[in-house]
Amino acid sequence: MTGIDETHDPARQSWVESANGHPDFPIQNLPLGVFSVAKGEPRIGVAIGEMILDLKALCGAGLLDKQWSPALGSGSLNAWFAQGPADALALRRRLSELLSNDGNRHAVEPHLVNSANAEMHLPCRIGDYTDFYVGIHHATNVGKQFRPDNPLLPNYKYVPIGYHGRASSVRVSGEPVVRPKGQRKSPEAEAPEYGPSRRLDYELELGFFVGKGNELGTTIPIAEAAGQIAGYCLLNDWSARDIQGWEYQPLGPFLAKNFLTSISPWVITPEALAPFRKPMPTRPDGDPEPLPYLFDPSDQAKGGLGIQLEVALLTAKMREAGLPPHVLSRGDASSAMYWSAAQIVTHHASNGCNLQPGDLIGTGTLSTAQSTGLGSLMEISAGGKAPIELPGAEKRSFLDDGDELTLSARCVAEGAVPIGFGSCTGRVLPAT
Amino acid sequence: MTGIDETHDPARQSWVESANGHPDFPIQNLPLGVFSVAKGEPRIGVAIGEMILDLKALCGAGLLDKQWSPALGSGSLNAWFAQGPADALALRRRLSELLSNDGNRHAVEPHLVNSANAEMHLPCRIGDYTDFYVGIHHATNVGKQFRPDNPLLPNYKYVPIGYHGRASSVRVSGEPVVRPKGQRKSPEAEAPEYGPSRRLDYELELGFFVGKGNELGTTIPIAEAAGQIAGYCLLNDWSARDIQGWEYQPLGPFLAKNFLTSISPWVITPEALAPFRKPMPTRPDGDPEPLPYLFDPSDQAKGGLGIQLEVALLTAKMREAGLPPHVLSRGDASSAMYWSAAQIVTHHASNGCNLQPGDLIGTGTLSTAQSTGLGSLMEISAGGKAPIELPGAEKRSFLDDGDELTLSARCVAEGAVPIGFGSCTGRVLPAT
Repeated sequence: MTGIDETHDPARQSWVESANGHPDFPIQNLPLGVFSVAKGEPRIGVAIGEMILDLKALCGAGLLDKQWSPALGSGSLNAWFAQGPADALALRRRLSELLSNDGNRHAVEPHLVNSANAEMHLPCRIGDYTDFYVGIHHATNVGKQFRPDNPLLPNYKYVPIGYHGRASSVRVSGEPVVRPKGQRKSPEAEAPEYGPSRRLDYELELGFFVGKGNELGTTIPIAEAAGQIAGYCLLNDWSARDIQGWEYQPLGPFLAKNFLTSISPWVITPEALAPFRKPMPTRPDGDPEPLPYLFDPSDQAKGGLGIQLEVALLTAKMREAGLPPHVLSRGDASSAMYWSAAQIVTHHASNGCNLQPGDLIGTGTLSTAQSTGLGSLMEISAGGKAPIELPGAEKRSFLDDGDELTLSARCVAEGAVPIGFGSCTGRVLPAT
Repeated sequence: MTGIDETHDPARQSWVESANGHPDFPIQNLPLGVFSVAKGEPRIGVAIGEMILDLKALCGAGLLDKQWSPALGSGSLNAWFAQGPADALALRRRLSELLSNDGNRHAVEPHLVNSANAEMHLPCRIGDYTDFYVGIHHATNVGKQFRPDNPLLPNYKYVPIGYHGRASSVRVSGEPVVRPKGQRKSPEAEAPEYGPSRRLDYELELGFFVGKGNELGTTIPIAEAAGQIAGYCLLNDWSARDIQGWEYQPLGPFLAKNFLTSISPWVITPEALAPFRKPMPTRPDGDPEPLPYLFDPSDQAKGGLGIQLEVALLTAKMREAGLPPHVLSRGDASSAMYWSAAQIVTHHASNGCNLQPGDLIGTGTLSTAQSTGLGSLMEISAGGKAPIELPGAEKRSFLDDGDELTLSARCVAEGAVPIGFGSCTGRVLPAT
């Protein structure tokens, strides 16, 4: 498989002992993030087991390519993302060498920080955030509520549908979810009311960050699009369904979504994901081929993301009772996505729209075809008609105050060391 | 009228002679912008007649309040916008004094730049750009194309409808309009094609900038919303109607809009607009009152914007023939807007969404009830069914390559010196 090198060698171990066998961050992962310690300045780091390696300090110690110092010494990953895949791979190989070879331990170890003592930040300044809708089973499930016989609109299989979200309210995992207020109108009511949402939901998504980007008025050919993706994260597109139902016509969701979007702090690089690539799912008979500007054989062969997604809920009552989180869904991203990340990037820039380093793009909700892999409560509870039963005799159709939701992801493939994304959590607070 | 002080005195003249009688920038206006000279660093300036007063230089000369130096000495207006209305008014009064009193001429004149030698930039870094849809005649005209008997959706008179736009592609007046490519599908075609838009249009809007903003999870009460608007500009929401028609369901316009948004460079302050305020238009019988969170008597009394808008078109052929631009429409913003700028701000933050200094908000297309005041070609040409005739025997349903479009605006009121917005232009270039 292309993109597999010594950094993926299953025999490679780190002298950072907590990395070996770590469910998320073995030496085969090496995700990038931004952290601080004791309210100090944010710095770029790499996760290795239970530790974080401080890349600014590593630059200062002369252990990384000098040319990388301006980007890796800054407080956000924007400049690094703009450097592109060749530097990304070179950094990965250098870090893998530094963290595996015992001879480097003496020089590198002083620049490790215990992650338990670190605060994580957004990995970069997000100029624009765009959310797509490529989860075909989700789109079908939602469409069925409006059009049972014809759930997908005619454009769905030609256009990677997307829309702009709110950049200012993207926050890193752990941010409290203040229940939003807004206009909501029940079908029988004559007029809407303004008040706290009664149908607060989550949406399980993957996010990814733009690399170098493109100038206004230019496009990104599909064969170059994969090289424009700097890395991946988990994304929770918190959604207020009652606000959404009333406001969204004709211009799409707005206040139902822009009160908060949570992402996981560690950016999983395309290089780390290489062993977990899959072919794009075969399009069912009768589906059109992608238009030529969206078609690339290499993308068809390995544009699928072999990422196992999981959502778990812990209510306040469960927490008090010492119960573990309840798994709401498990599913594979590759089977959920009708369009690849590369197709999303190419489509986004296909009109000359300029993408910039660090722009965040969401896939849209990733539900599988199975009922065990649905990515939102709206789907799981059938819009509230079939509340789920939780341990401790609780029921839920939507999120209650005090509920804590956690997204997580792991990649598993034969012959590869499994890696993980860490988690993306948020606890619901009452409306203010 | 509140907000009227000596800075609006019609008798006040400037020693900058080009300001006196200037259609846009007499001393009663004093709009803020960001300019550079000879590719130098961008600086904050104020337009006065044909000149620009360099506020960084004025700070350096000790002629402005020292506390303002960090904000006014920077290369963008974000920090200044965050200072709020009290400082905005104090600056206005100080500038009006400096530019009217002959005794200041000797000290101030060295800091004037001829605007003909200046390049204008975006007035601030735009974190998020949101576009609304408060032009009720526009919404009605568009709705009629889909639902002749019931053009406005049930939420329109309760919800100030808006959606997120693209911040990265907002450009200052003068930016070329590269004809976008995209998927478009004619009704009779079986499948869409990817190619240059055949229905390129403009949309006449006002834009405004957020002042101090609000923290995530908090709201902006309607009584405080007017104080959250730092200033106004013209905004052209360039639109590809064929791309829009095919892509926009179910999440709203995306690539049909995000290839470019143009704004005029000068920020007209709320203080300058004070004499031109009007009551909000009376809602027709049967329309609901605004919900309480959107209702404020003061906003009802003076939330209307008495701004005369004009759109003019100059084709390549007209330019070659030496013909003047052809006026496509003239109309008044206050009669076009169903919701005020303050209502837009309060609604936007009503779910806890955080607005930030310098965020750009568009009103949506401002068409009047009269056929002479329509804000887009889609409306003027009835979707292409009634092409307009231009001087020189040309016709247009949508924009051709080489067409140059100019938005302009003036404010006129009895007892006040008229002021203008300057212009917002763009010339269409062929698809690349």
